[in-house]
This record gives sequence, C-alpha cells and structure tokens, in this order.
Amino acid sequence: MFRRLGRFVFGKSMASHQLGNEKLNVFWGMPILSSDSISSVAYAVEEILLVLVPVIGLASFMWMPRIALAIIALLIILVLSYRHVVDAYPNGGGAYVVAKDNLGPIYSLAAGASLSVDYTLTVAVSIAAASAAITSAFPSLYAHRVAISLLLIFLLAVGNLRGIRESSRIFSLPTYAFILSIVVLVAAGIIKYLTGGMPVLPPAEAIPATPGIQAVTMFLIIRAFASGCSALTGVEAISNAVPNFKAPAAKQAKTVYALLALAIIVCFGGVAVLANLYQIVPDPRQTVITQLTLSIFGPGLMLYIMAATTGLILALAANTAYSGFPTLLSVIAQDGYVPRQLSMRGHRLNFNNGIILLSLAAAILIIVFQADTHLLISLYAVGVFTSFTLSQAGMVIHWWKERSKGWTWKALINAAGAATTGVAVTVIGITKFAEGAWIVFVVVPLIITVMLKIKTHYLSVAQQLDIPNESLAQINLNSDYQHHVIVPVDSFNAMVVKALRYARSITSHVEAFHVEVYAGESEKLRRKWNLLDTDIPLIVKFSPYREVVNLLTEYIDSEEHASQPGDIITVLLPQFFVPHRWEMALHNNTSLFIANAMLKKRNVIVSIIPFYLEDLKTYHLAKSHKPVL
Amino acid sequence: MFRRLGRFVFGKSMASHQLGNEKLNVFWGMPILSSDSISSVAYAVEEILLVLVPVIGLASFMWMPRIALAIIALLIILVLSYRHVVDAYPNGGGAYVVAKDNLGPIYSLAAGASLSVDYTLTVAVSIAAASAAITSAFPSLYAHRVAISLLLIFLLAVGNLRGIRESSRIFSLPTYAFILSIVVLVAAGIIKYLTGGMPVLPPAEAIPATPGIQAVTMFLIIRAFASGCSALTGVEAISNAVPNFKAPAAKQAKTVYALLALAIIVCFGGVAVLANLYQIVPDPRQTVITQLTLSIFGPGLMLYIMAATTGLILALAANTAYSGFPTLLSVIAQDGYVPRQLSMRGHRLNFNNGIILLSLAAAILIIVFQADTHLLISLYAVGVFTSFTLSQAGMVIHWWKERSKGWTWKALINAAGAATTGVAVTVIGITKFAEGAWIVFVVVPLIITVMLKIKTHYLSVAQQLDIPNESLAQINLNSDYQHHVIVPVDSFNAMVVKALRYARSITSHVEAFHVEVYAGESEKLRRKWNLLDTDIPLIVKFSPYREVVNLLTEYIDSEEHASQPGDIITVLLPQFFVPHRWEMALHNNTSLFIANAMLKKRNVIVSIIPFYLEDLKTYHLAKSHKPVL
Repeated sequence: MFRRLGRFVFGKSMASHQLGNEKLNVFWGMPILSSDSISSVAYAVEEILLVLVPVIGLASFMWMPRIALAIIALLIILVLSYRHVVDAYPNGGGAYVVAKDNLGPIYSLAAGASLSVDYTLTVAVSIAAASAAITSAFPSLYAHRVAISLLLIFLLAVGNLRGIRESSRIFSLPTYAFILSIVVLVAAGIIKYLTGGMPVLPPAEAIPATPGIQAVTMFLIIRAFASGCSALTGVEAISNAVPNFKAPAAKQAKTVYALLALAIIVCFGGVAVLANLYQIVPDPRQTVITQLTLSIFGPGLMLYIMAATTGLILALAANTAYSGFPTLLSVIAQDGYVPRQLSMRGHRLNFNNGIILLSLAAAILIIVFQADTHLLISLYAVGVFTSFTLSQAGMVIHWWKERSKGWTWKALINAAGAATTGVAVTVIGITKFAEGAWIVFVVVPLIITVMLKIKTHYLSVAQQLDIPNESLAQINLNSDYQHHVIVPVDSFNAMVVKALRYARSITSHVEAFHVEVYAGESEKLRRKWNLLDTDIPLIVKFSPYREVVNLLTEYIDSEEHASQPGDIITVLLPQFFVPHRWEMALHNNTSLFIANAMLKKRNVIVSIIPFYLEDLKTYHLAKSHKPVL
Repeated sequence: MFRRLGRFVFGKSMASHQLGNEKLNVFWGMPILSSDSISSVAYAVEEILLVLVPVIGLASFMWMPRIALAIIALLIILVLSYRHVVDAYPNGGGAYVVAKDNLGPIYSLAAGASLSVDYTLTVAVSIAAASAAITSAFPSLYAHRVAISLLLIFLLAVGNLRGIRESSRIFSLPTYAFILSIVVLVAAGIIKYLTGGMPVLPPAEAIPATPGIQAVTMFLIIRAFASGCSALTGVEAISNAVPNFKAPAAKQAKTVYALLALAIIVCFGGVAVLANLYQIVPDPRQTVITQLTLSIFGPGLMLYIMAATTGLILALAANTAYSGFPTLLSVIAQDGYVPRQLSMRGHRLNFNNGIILLSLAAAILIIVFQADTHLLISLYAVGVFTSFTLSQAGMVIHWWKERSKGWTWKALINAAGAATTGVAVTVIGITKFAEGAWIVFVVVPLIITVMLKIKTHYLSVAQQLDIPNESLAQINLNSDYQHHVIVPVDSFNAMVVKALRYARSITSHVEAFHVEVYAGESEKLRRKWNLLDTDIPLIVKFSPYREVVNLLTEYIDSEEHASQPGDIITVLLPQFFVPHRWEMALHNNTSLFIANAMLKKRNVIVSIIPFYLEDLKTYHLAKSHKPVL
C-alpha cells in the first residue's frame, strides 16, 4: 500500500540509461540558469531601503542611485571574471572545483561549505520572498506565511524527488515573464512620472524626521551596499552548467553571462530608479514591487500579474538550488568529505538524499526565522561572496600556472573580481555580523570540521581494507581453517535439527549451547538430547540474571582462548520466520538479538539458518506432526 | 550513560534466586489484599447519589439505605462464595484459573479478558479517585487533575518496575489509617447528629424539586444499585493470593475474607448513613467524603487527614492491580493466549512487560476520560461482575465434579453467588450500557478474539517445529549436504579475501557475485579479479535500476532451479564494523540490508563475516598498507 502510494507520488523507478541531458541554447539556457540572479531583484532594492530609510528618511533617495550603480559595477566585474571561468572549465567550474584544483583541499572545503550554506539559504530566501509576493497581493494570507513557505518547500521536494529536469523548457517561461513584467512596470512608471501622473508620495508620518546629511555615516552607506549585494547571488550557476549547453558550449555560456548582466542592469536598475521616483518606504506587509505596482497601476490585474510572476521566478530560483545543492554534494561525496550516500542516485536517478537534506535544512530556517526575508538575507550574502572570492582567487592561480596567451589580462580581471568580492565579503561580514552573519561564521567552519572528520574516517577504512594490485597475485584464497561451530539452542525442535545438520556438514567439531534461565528449566531439553543418537555435546550454562548474550560471549571467549591459530568459530543461529510481521512480535526472536550482539562483540562468523513456517489457520490443529526435514 | 540512568531509576539486576515470597499473616494480609475493596468506599456512596439526586432530589435519602443494604447483602453472598474458592484452590483461584478448570477455555478467556479490563480500570478509577481526593482538599489543583493522575501512574510504574513487593508491610498502613479515619468520621458524625450539632443542610437550590414518589421508577433504583456495586470490586484479590499466607493458608485467607466483609460493612455502611443524615449532594469538585468532613469537622486538620488517607489507600488499590495484572497475564501467556514475552521476568524479577502495558492502558483511559471517576466507573463494574459470575459458576461445576462431603451446601452457596452476580452483571450491563458499559461489551470480545488468534499462531508454530520424543532416536543429524556458497562482492578488498577463504574452507563450489550499478563500473573489479590466482568465478549482473537485492534473489532462484536435492546455498556476506555508531551511518552497509532481505525471501543460509576496523585518527594517513589477514 505504502509502496503504491510512494510510486504514485514519486513516480516509477527509472533505469540508469534514462539519464539523459538535453542540451540548451542561449534562448532557453539564459532564463533557466539566471532565475536565481534575476529573482534577487524582487528583494534587493527593498534591502537597500530597509537599511537607509529608518535612519536617514528622505535622504535615502539621494544615496540610492549611487549604491545601485556601485552594485552594477560589481556585477560587471563578476560577470567578466566568470566568463573566464567558463573558458577555463568547460566541464563546469563551480567554486568547489576551481578552489580544489588551484588552492588546495581546505579552500575547496571552505568553498563547498559556503556554497552548501548558500544553496540552503537560496531556498529559504527565495521561498520566503515568494510567500511575501503572494501575501502582499493577498494580505489576508500574511498570518500563514510560514505555512505557505513550508508548503512550497514540500512541493519543490516532491517535484525534485520525482525528478523535475531543471533543463525542462517550461522553466524558462517564469523568467521571461518576470523580466517582461518588470520592464512594463519600469516603462509605465517612468512614463507616468514624466507625464506628471503624480506619484503618490508616502504619507509624511511614515518617514522619520531627516537627521540631516551630517548623520549619514560611511558605515550606513556600506551596509546598504552590502544589503544590495543580495542582487548578485546566483551568478555562479551558469559557470557550473557549461556542459549543458549546445556546442560551442563555452561561447554560448559567455553570451548568457552577457545577457544576464543586461537583464540585471535593466531590472535591478529600473526598480531602483522607480523606488526613487516614487519614494517607496519599505513595509513588512507589502513588498517594494507591490507598492510600485499599486502606485503606477492602482489595484487591479497588474497587481496579480506582478505577484504571480514574482512568486514563480522565486520558486524557480529555489528550484535552481534543488539542482545545484545535490549535485555539489555528490561531487564532494565522491571526494569523501560528506557521506557517500549523497553521491548515489535514487530510483528516479536524482540525488534524493541531497534533496531531502536541502528541504529539511530550508524548512528549519523558514521556521526559525519565521519566513522573514530580511533576516534570512543577512545570513545569505556572506557565503555567496566567500565562494565568489575563493573561485576568483583560484582562477588567478589557474592563469598563473597555465600562462597561456593573454593570461595576464585574464588573471587581472579575475584578480579584480577576487579583490572586489573579497572586500565585499569583509564589508558584509562586518556590517551584518550582529544581524545574523555570525551564524555563517560559526556554521561554515563547523561544516568544514565535520567534512574533515568524515574524510579521515573514509581514509582510515580504505587503508584497512584496500589491497594494492601488486599484492593481488600473492593472495592465497584457499585456507586450512579448523571450523568450530556453536549452535545456541533454546529447545529441541525441527529448526535445531536443520541447524545441527548444517553444522555437521561443515565440521565434526559442533557444540550445542543452552542457557538455563530458570533453575531446572533445562531438564526437558537434556532428556530429549539423551534420546538423540548423536555425539554432539549439549553445553548448559546457568544464568542467574536470565541473560543469554553475555553467557554466550563468555563461552566463546573461553573457546577462543583454548583455540589454535587457524581455528575459526561460527555461531549458527536457527531462527524461524512467520508469514506476517505481527506474528514475529509474538516471539522473542532471540537468535536475531544474538546475531546482532555477536557481530558487534566478537570476531566470530554469524550464520542464520532460516526456517520458514506456514500460516496454519485452523484453531484445533491436528495433533499429527509433519515429518522433520 | 542511559544504562547508568536506567540502573539508578530501576535498580540493579536481580538474580533469579532472589525471588522470595514473604508470607503474610492475617494482621498484615488483610490490609494489603483488601485495599482495592475497601478503597471503593471512597466513591461507591457518591456513585449511588449521582444516580438518585439529580432525578428525585431529597427522596434519594429515602432510597439510599435500602440500596446500601442490598449491596451489603450481595457482599455477604460474595464473601461466602469466595471462602469456598479458597478451600478449593489453595494455590490461588483467580476467575481465570477456576473457569479454565471447570468451564473450559472460552469461559476462561472471557474471565481473563474481563479481569484484564478490570485491572486496567482499577488503576484508572483508583488513580482518578485519588486525584479527586487531593483536588477536593486543594481545589486550586482541580484544573491539573489529569496531570496529577498521569504523574501517579508514572510513579506506580517506576516503583513496580523497580520491583515494589506488594507484600511489603508498609503497604498495610494506608488501609488501617483509612479504616480508622472513616470510623472516626462516622462516629463523630453520628455523635454530632445525635447531640443536635445541626447538620448543615445543603442549600435548597442545589437540589431539584422532588418530582414525587410516583416518578421513582424501578429502573432508577436498579441503576443506583448497579452504581453502588462498585463498592464490591476487588473482592477477588484474596482468593488469588492464598499461597502468600502463612500456614494454615486457607484458614487465614478465610479469616481475612470475614474481616474484609466487616470492614466494608462498617465503612461503606457508615458513609452511606452519614450521607443520609447530612443529606449530601454530589459535587464534581468535592467528594462526598470531603463534604462530610467539612460538615462534621469544618475546614482544618481532619480535612487533610481524610484527603491523605483516601489518596493513599486509592494509590495502594491501584498498586494491587500492578501486582495482579502482570501475574494474570503471565499465567495466560503460559497458556499461549497472549504474547509469550508477558510471562518473562525482567531484570528486577517482575513481569515488566505487563507493568508497562498496564500503565499505558491506564494512562490512555485517564486521558480519554479526563480523569473523571464517574465515567470510568460506568465501565468498571461490568467486567468485575462478569468475572465474579464466571468464577462462581465454575465453582458450582467444581463441587459437582468433586462431590466431596458437604458439597451440596458449598455448591448452593456458590450457585447463589453466581446467580446474584449474574443478575447484577445483567442489571449493570443494561442500566449503564449507554454510559460506557458498551465499550466493555466491545472490548472484551475483541480481546478474546485476539487471544484466540494468538493461540492459533503458537499452536501452528509448535506443530511445525515440535518433534515428539518417540521420533528423536530416528533423527540423523549427519548430512551429506552439497554446499554452494555465494559471496556478494562490492569491491575487492581485505574483507572479501576473508570471506572467500571462509567459503573455500567449506566447499570448492564458491562464486563471487557482483551487481554492476552503473555501466562499466565493474571493470576495475574485473581487472583486480584477473590479477588473482584463483578459480573462483566472478559473476557480474547489470542492474539498470541500481537495485542489488532483487538481482541477487533472481540469481539464487536460478541456482536453486539448477540444484540437486541435498544442495544447500549459503550467502556469505562480508561486512565491516567500525568503532563508533555514527561511522556506520557513513556507509551503505549493503551486506546487512542483503542479510535482512535474504532471510525474509529465500531458503538460503545467511552468514555474516565480520571485519573489525580500528579507529585511525590521523588525517594524513600513511600510504602503507597493513598485511592482509
């Protein structure tokens, strides 16, 4: 029943050869790979205003354009840098891979840990922002924003466990729809402004008294810049996905980078301009985009179109993380720094363990931060810019090592990228430390430590198990083991007969072992044993504490003590199996307990002799006995 | 850590020979075995009033004495009947045993099921009444009565899991203290009434207008009688415990029965008289006993003394069930009608599974019925009187079979007991059906059905496993099995070497079996295999769905198909074990999964070859390899 339900929800199993990869061209690839970046527009302008407006009020709208320009300048440097990454890593150059190749394992783990945190935050932030888009169009849902966010995560998890292909073309529509809506909004807003369509100025009381220019500290401006940098998250996605493009892949990817830059400049720049023209004041219950739409179009259809396209592109951005995070972890798992199970494909060929892990982590973040976009973004940018910096620094080393034609120019661009993002991460870390960035500074080193511990474990296991090829020819697989078989016996019955026969077929050195739990309880067994025509000894030990496993362990210890080298002890456990699971609960299943305990305690081979019982339904069972074996 | 905590809470393990049984005399035995009966006084009078007062108001106090007398008459018949049970069953004659011996298995199961339900209800009712005694003295605790009840059940469970001896003499004190308090209350109440100490009449509005005698239906009176019968619960306890008395046990037990009757007559009769004199109106927030104490002594010390002694005897009554229920289930378990685990003594020598079962069931009742004594008592009496009837009817058959001297007289007494309790159970069943007694009519048959299903299962297992003594001498324990060993191999390593050697030491017919999960993934293994100096074949099967167990099962099927009679297949699974539990989570532990699946699926022997790994802490492990085996 459960299996059928599971198949309905998650789909039928897929064969390995079905692992296709549809190649993308620029037209389809741009929207799919840029959704994370472009969707940031939905909250980046708001983040800048949230820093400025409460402190300097209307003066914010003087600083806003400069900050937006600085962010766009940083974007251009980043995009130029990443176009070089595409050239150098045509098989996909995530920060983890670039850092591993050029900077060494610790840096790659730092990049891997930062990226893991980021992917998780991408889901949490995008989903929280998608809920905000929905609830600012439908204010009555505001109280349910956590539930809405969790529902969206659940849908993403199920969809991805079924195996949504990120490359499915349908996923390009939300991005184009969002870009189009923003372009319409910006155009209409500018026209309305220019034609004197009287922007609705915010009511005076919503803006605190301006404390004057002298109070505008550099720190505040830098903080606003740091907050706005959330517009640049997700730029890395394209460099990871180079192999997904049609030939010439690198060239297409670079074109996509150029288009991405253009899209962000238009959308982010446009919204920033509008926010300035219409002097939008951030409101936790209405996003900046909703406020702009209301000011420009009034309540009506456009409001719902904006909410829908924003919600969709944000959900798509979260979905990008559902493709990136499990893939990243599978790469790290192949290097042995995270549990191996993360590199295994599930029955739908996706990395289902990674998908589940990501969903759980994002759901926890949503609950802890009550789906508050603003609080989550404070954690967000640190990790993003750390991986940017590591990746660009790695590229500088790469060009230095390679020194191919024109390498100095490329190295310079990447160095500029590393430097600016390095400065940015420092700025963001300091200005947002108290707001939550400290969590990242705790979590990332913690993840690195765990990764190193896991790697140590795998290395230790490998060292103890591996056999070098040179030694293979010398291995003698034949042995002259002297077998000694111990058969724990509770009472004498058909299943014991089967076990003793099996034991005897291996060796003549067989012993039956019984633990007497209550005084005199073993007499019946002893009487039956004496009626047998056998030389197999029955060893009985009395257990005052009604404990079986310890006595068996002690006995095995004493036998091991008396054994010769080459002797090998097998504990042969008869265990019956009944047709229904509930029936197993009616039995002690001592053999299975002993098997478990023996495996953990002693260097003995544990064999289970199954005895399958039928389902006899009649209450008054015939007294006759079936022939034994 | 958990083990140490467990030892602190539950005490150290006890050896079987520590199972002592302190013998009781009349002085200590009476209070210990009668607590359940005598404590009923705390609620029985209230139950009668709860039926009468809301319907006939002040006229209740006309009917009260007659109903009390009828109940006392029933008590006398019951006690006389049970004194005969003591004679006939000096080793303890619970209803289950008496019905089994004399009426047959279905009747004994009915008795067993009724008693099980009763014991559970004894705990629930007594604990709810104990909470009521506490909260009527401390009204501010009324809101927490469910929590108080659950806490008391928890304490009883822990105490009994530690192994409180029911026979500990300290348990006789609460009963004597309660009897003494009631006697003082009754004496002071009567004196105060006679000396004109003006009983505080209940305020007029609390009593509904009397609808007149004509409305007093027979049904109402019978319902009140049925409710009052809750005073007689627990009478069976003494007959179960005959072996616990000093010699002459039967004589002592019979004396205790006489004393029990006396105590109930004095306490129940006395409280009934007082309730009448002081015209007490039942109040869910104040027990009848509290109201009487307030009327007679006013608020003060006596109020707390009564609350304490009532609470203690009720807790003790619940504790009686903690001794009775697990013992009863252990007897039924020995007959195979309930899971065998219920007949096994825990590390403190008590039947801990029964204790846990009882606590859970009582806790569920407390939560469902919100610790409401009145609602629980509606369920209570049906089971009690069913087992009374079955036990007494069984005794009639017993005397009929035995026909010893004076058997007719004894049979007559027991017949009278069976008849009156039979009438009582009918009356109770009908009058309280809608109030909850129907639950018992559903639950008891359900329990009986499950018991029969369990018995059928055990019989079926026994029939398939048992070997009669006559056949033992003919069994040939030597066999000429032809072994065929299959070793599932993931990659070639030291643990596989150990497994192959073990396999080779059993038979030359060994095969290594590998499932190729991704195309080409097996090539490395194949290359290594070719470097080996061995004739063991490596069989590789490709699994498009990355599934291992099914392919192995299919392969075994095909091998079984090709096998001769006498061939036996062993699946030999190499599995490594690491020192820490968390480290096991880093591995697939495929062997353990295969072992589980194989045991449930196929008639093959499953052997696990353990390979113990050490804890190598160094991060940069030396590249050298330890010698293999």
